Amino acid sequence: MENIHLLVPAAGVLALIYAFAKATWVKKQPVGTKEMADIAALIQEGAMAFIRTEYRVLSGFVAIVAVLLFLANKGNGNGEMIAMAFVVGAIASGLAGYAGMKVATDANVRTTNAAKDGLPNALNVAFSGGAVMGMSVVGLALLGLGLLFAFFTNHFSGADGLTLALNTLTGFSMGASSIALFARVGGGIFTKAADMGADLVGKVEAGLPEDDPRNPAVIADNVGDNVGDVAGMGADLFESYVGAIIGAMVLALSFKGAGGADIDVMPMVLLPMLIAAAGIVASIIGTFAVKVKEGGNPQHALDMGAFGSAGVMVIATFAIANKIWPGEVFIGELGVDAIDVGIATVIGLGVGVLVGIITAYYCSMDKKPVNSIVEQSKTGEATNIVAGIGLGMESTAAPIILIAAGVIGASHFAGLYGVAIAALGMLSTTGIQLAVDAYGPIADNAGGIAEMSHQPAEVRERTDLLDAVGNTTAAIGKGFAIASAAMTALALFAAFRVQSGIDGIELTKPLVMSGLFIGGMLPFLFSSMAMKAVGGAAMEMIEEVRRQFRDIPGLLEGKADPDAARCVQISTDAAIKKMIVPGMMAVVTPVVVGFGFGPEALGGVLAGVTISGVTMAIFMSNAGGAWDNAKKSFEGGGYTMEDGSVHEKGSPAHDASVVGDTVGDPFKDTAGPALNILVKLMCVVSLVIAPMLANL
Amino acid sequence: MENIHLLVPAAGVLALIYAFAKATWVKKQPVGTKEMADIAALIQEGAMAFIRTEYRVLSGFVAIVAVLLFLANKGNGNGEMIAMAFVVGAIASGLAGYAGMKVATDANVRTTNAAKDGLPNALNVAFSGGAVMGMSVVGLALLGLGLLFAFFTNHFSGADGLTLALNTLTGFSMGASSIALFARVGGGIFTKAADMGADLVGKVEAGLPEDDPRNPAVIADNVGDNVGDVAGMGADLFESYVGAIIGAMVLALSFKGAGGADIDVMPMVLLPMLIAAAGIVASIIGTFAVKVKEGGNPQHALDMGAFGSAGVMVIATFAIANKIWPGEVFIGELGVDAIDVGIATVIGLGVGVLVGIITAYYCSMDKKPVNSIVEQSKTGEATNIVAGIGLGMESTAAPIILIAAGVIGASHFAGLYGVAIAALGMLSTTGIQLAVDAYGPIADNAGGIAEMSHQPAEVRERTDLLDAVGNTTAAIGKGFAIASAAMTALALFAAFRVQSGIDGIELTKPLVMSGLFIGGMLPFLFSSMAMKAVGGAAMEMIEEVRRQFRDIPGLLEGKADPDAARCVQISTDAAIKKMIVPGMMAVVTPVVVGFGFGPEALGGVLAGVTISGVTMAIFMSNAGGAWDNAKKSFEGGGYTMEDGSVHEKGSPAHDASVVGDTVGDPFKDTAGPALNILVKLMCVVSLVIAPMLANL
Repeated sequence: MENIHLLVPAAGVLALIYAFAKATWVKKQPVGTKEMADIAALIQEGAMAFIRTEYRVLSGFVAIVAVLLFLANKGNGNGEMIAMAFVVGAIASGLAGYAGMKVATDANVRTTNAAKDGLPNALNVAFSGGAVMGMSVVGLALLGLGLLFAFFTNHFSGADGLTLALNTLTGFSMGASSIALFARVGGGIFTKAADMGADLVGKVEAGLPEDDPRNPAVIADNVGDNVGDVAGMGADLFESYVGAIIGAMVLALSFKGAGGADIDVMPMVLLPMLIAAAGIVASIIGTFAVKVKEGGNPQHALDMGAFGSAGVMVIATFAIANKIWPGEVFIGELGVDAIDVGIATVIGLGVGVLVGIITAYYCSMDKKPVNSIVEQSKTGEATNIVAGIGLGMESTAAPIILIAAGVIGASHFAGLYGVAIAALGMLSTTGIQLAVDAYGPIADNAGGIAEMSHQPAEVRERTDLLDAVGNTTAAIGKGFAIASAAMTALALFAAFRVQSGIDGIELTKPLVMSGLFIGGMLPFLFSSMAMKAVGGAAMEMIEEVRRQFRDIPGLLEGKADPDAARCVQISTDAAIKKMIVPGMMAVVTPVVVGFGFGPEALGGVLAGVTISGVTMAIFMSNAGGAWDNAKKSFEGGGYTMEDGSVHEKGSPAHDASVVGDTVGDPFKDTAGPALNILVKLMCVVSLVIAPMLANL
Repeated sequence: MENIHLLVPAAGVLALIYAFAKATWVKKQPVGTKEMADIAALIQEGAMAFIRTEYRVLSGFVAIVAVLLFLANKGNGNGEMIAMAFVVGAIASGLAGYAGMKVATDANVRTTNAAKDGLPNALNVAFSGGAVMGMSVVGLALLGLGLLFAFFTNHFSGADGLTLALNTLTGFSMGASSIALFARVGGGIFTKAADMGADLVGKVEAGLPEDDPRNPAVIADNVGDNVGDVAGMGADLFESYVGAIIGAMVLALSFKGAGGADIDVMPMVLLPMLIAAAGIVASIIGTFAVKVKEGGNPQHALDMGAFGSAGVMVIATFAIANKIWPGEVFIGELGVDAIDVGIATVIGLGVGVLVGIITAYYCSMDKKPVNSIVEQSKTGEATNIVAGIGLGMESTAAPIILIAAGVIGASHFAGLYGVAIAALGMLSTTGIQLAVDAYGPIADNAGGIAEMSHQPAEVRERTDLLDAVGNTTAAIGKGFAIASAAMTALALFAAFRVQSGIDGIELTKPLVMSGLFIGGMLPFLFSSMAMKAVGGAAMEMIEEVRRQFRDIPGLLEGKADPDAARCVQISTDAAIKKMIVPGMMAVVTPVVVGFGFGPEALGGVLAGVTISGVTMAIFMSNAGGAWDNAKKSFEGGGYTMEDGSVHEKGSPAHDASVVGDTVGDPFKDTAGPALNILVKLMCVVSLVIAPMLANL
């Protein structure tokens, strides 16, 4: 038991070995023809160029913040350590994104090539590529956390040693969160600017099909899938994962024995990391279940993997808690035993799955919500837009009620520690969930490469099938991401209260009320910045694509190549430039409010940003997803309306739905997902500065 | 000083006498030709038919709630009284709406007729019509409040007599608020369904000009202006006004003397009503300033009236406070004297004016925000929509920061009582503000009647001028409405905390967090219901207008009359049917949460709904207003883009802007304004049930 905490970095290493093995295997698969290799190289170069530019800019930010953290914490005696933890967190998150994207851009073309032989192999390549991202994220997270924890608990001894060690460890979470926000916002701007440019000029104005190689923005669009959906999502889940673990660890500090006696809280502090370590093993087991025969349904394979892992985790959590939990311990009056902790995990998983199912319901084709948007496309763009916005807003109700119920349920059994554990329950199998998530854009890219390199139709059909089936699992994963973000934020928020040394945050105090208002407004301001950035960059992209069609002779006839690199550059420049202000806002606001108006006002801001941010994220993601599928409903044989009329692709109703889809793009792929990170980052920054606020 | 409180109902009577005199004068003005009279009669009949139907449905609701209030409060000994206060509040609000709309529909045609002679007389008629609405609202509110207060303080004697009297008086506010919500939601649905029907088929499909008599939905559209913008807004301000007064009165109960000694709080309880009474006098004085010469600028006349009244009020507030305030009194540690109260009023007015100026900035033609939407219309509907949504979201930042600063400022001087007084400062001149607001739709209607009755072009030009100039003053009024609603909600919320007998509302408690989440989500759900209702009704309207063009021979050639009554009926049915569920949600939620999960959880819900509701209201109102003016920017000589290209009415860019305007209609006229009431109604219902929750 003495060295049980070493299991944590060991599990991290295990995940990294798995990721390395998979990456090597993917790299060994054949790439196919030279044409395919060339296209893939363009995509990979674009993606890696973007990420290098992004990291170069961010390294300056990281250096400055590290120095500030050092200076601010010097007095507490952990200045160097927290600065180091911050830098390590940033590097770990960055490395995970880099590795995951590198392998994803290796896997895309190899998936296309494997699809020539049939479905099973193609699924295998694509999923393996995704698994590298998944395992890199959890591996680097746990390795970093585990080693720093061992080091800090050793370094800071004495009565408050553990508290100081955990304070310092929050730097790791802040490092990861900072990278996550910039990566999400930057990636989101990149991908949607490219997408809108490719669609509005290439498809609508020039009438080219999807992924046509003559379209100058197509490569940028494919780069965007990797930048936004692979690297961005990886960074997102990295920070949720780390945030949930650290939030729970900090909350464990306040456990007491019967009658309020002090006890050794180490088992409760370790438990979150041990659950995460078990989650890595469960995820690896799960990946072996992802297999499909020719003619089989890849959906079942992915479900088997994801749900199988979750099932293993429920049992593992009860077992671990049972093993290390010291009988009954107390948070205030509330007695908590190992079973209570297990139940909190189950509540978390239950809420996650249900929110996922609801998300899927609101965004799926042939279900009532999406069909109502399709019906309202009949009377034009305006009714389509109003229907989509209305649906997105409506779709916030059930998830929020479930999250609220989950908070009440989990805290009934184990207080706010239970809420953190519930969040962790959802996130413990991040390894395989992220593999499924990242598999989607790889399959999508594979389809693009098939199109651009003129493969036979059956290849594209297979990649399309792979792409489509990931969607439901991904929707459930999105539900997990939102619900876990909400609960993680609450856990971090509760940890903030503990660390900032305030007695409470009284809602009717004017400063707290004002804080709530400001916090509630920030997601609106943040979303507007993200959407404006996309709008501006998309207009630049549109002008550039028009210019190339005009100025490059023979381009539209397929006799000349477009200047794809120029389009990638436009997206890169816009993304890097426009990610700064919203990113800084998230970091600076807690500092200004905390030091300017005190921890209670900051508590109000955090509560406000959490409520409004989570609700807005659900609204924007679901509206965007529903618009997307409403548009897709017209494809194939057309859509039969309630009045019996059939509307095909190219009909006025379909045109209206294209407008909705375009509006939805920045909703669901830029602003929506970034809001989750905004919320968590603000909570983490507050947690990091909390001990300083306590000393004011 | 003994009977100083009788000044309150006296001021109410004064306002009603003024309103009656104005109404009589308006009625005496000539209506013009028989054709004009016929059209006006159609509008008036439609409007009155709607309001009668609405009140019939609501009378059932009022009866049921009154019985429930009676039963629930029987144990406290004020069952009959609170039920009576509720009914009186509902009737007073209803009467004000009825009277205001009756006179507004008398004034519209008389304004058209007066415009034949010139501008001064037309302004006089239109403004007099609006003044009847304004004075009816404040008159009935203060008469009801004043008489009930006198009656209840007499009826409930003893130690807790005053507390019980004020508890009972909250029933009046709840009655007014209930009617307000239904009127706003119902009116909003009515007017936008008619508007979209008239625009999408009549103008876009059939190519008819605005207000063309051949368009079957034009009468419904004109009815809608009265139903939504006159009656709906009147009910809205009625409840804000009453809510701010009662919130401040309840908070005054907790004033203490030096060292925490009990003191006579009556002066502090009376002050809000006395300020409101003075506001009536100030408003009446202001109306005399609203005069314009031929060729003069009506904008100056309206500004003179509104700002003049506000100026008078600042002085009056200091004078009244100075007169009745008993030296220094204490809320907790905070000493408050008469000057502090005066400063709080000034802060409220300052915040209101600034929020109004910002609102005007974001929604005005030729300003940067609206122009950015116009520019983005060049690349089509999608970029127009994204730009509008982004702008609306951005526009929440400054008002929310100002409101937060106002809360901190006002409470610095006089605690939460100061916040309530600040809200009241903005609302005290509701009499004249509402006159200006209601003047807008009268002028708008006058233009419609001019068009339908084929008046010479100069008549329409004059009514258009009248219509346009009201907009800036109305935008500032909207800013007042939003800022005052936010502050009123906080005051009611603080009063709720006092009355529910809880020590505080601790933000980090799981029940409070969950409450915050639920509350924060409700405005989204509520908005989605409102928008769906508009969408559904608009589609029915569209089908009906298309049917009439098809089935009525000679209609398009102007040889046959449309069936306008059928269109009015469709809007009426939809509005009545669809107002029920969102309205009930607002009333039922506090009851369910309060009794099911306790007052702290309910406190969380109220905070959540306030933050999210106010922010969403600003977002939706401003986005809608900006889209509207972006569309109008193309009218006249067209709009010159940054690249020098000129885009006129009918260009693709203008078409894109029409889509944005149509999306904005339910934003700014249905969901947005109703959110303010949702927030306040939920706070008032909670305040009413607070004493019961305290006894659980």
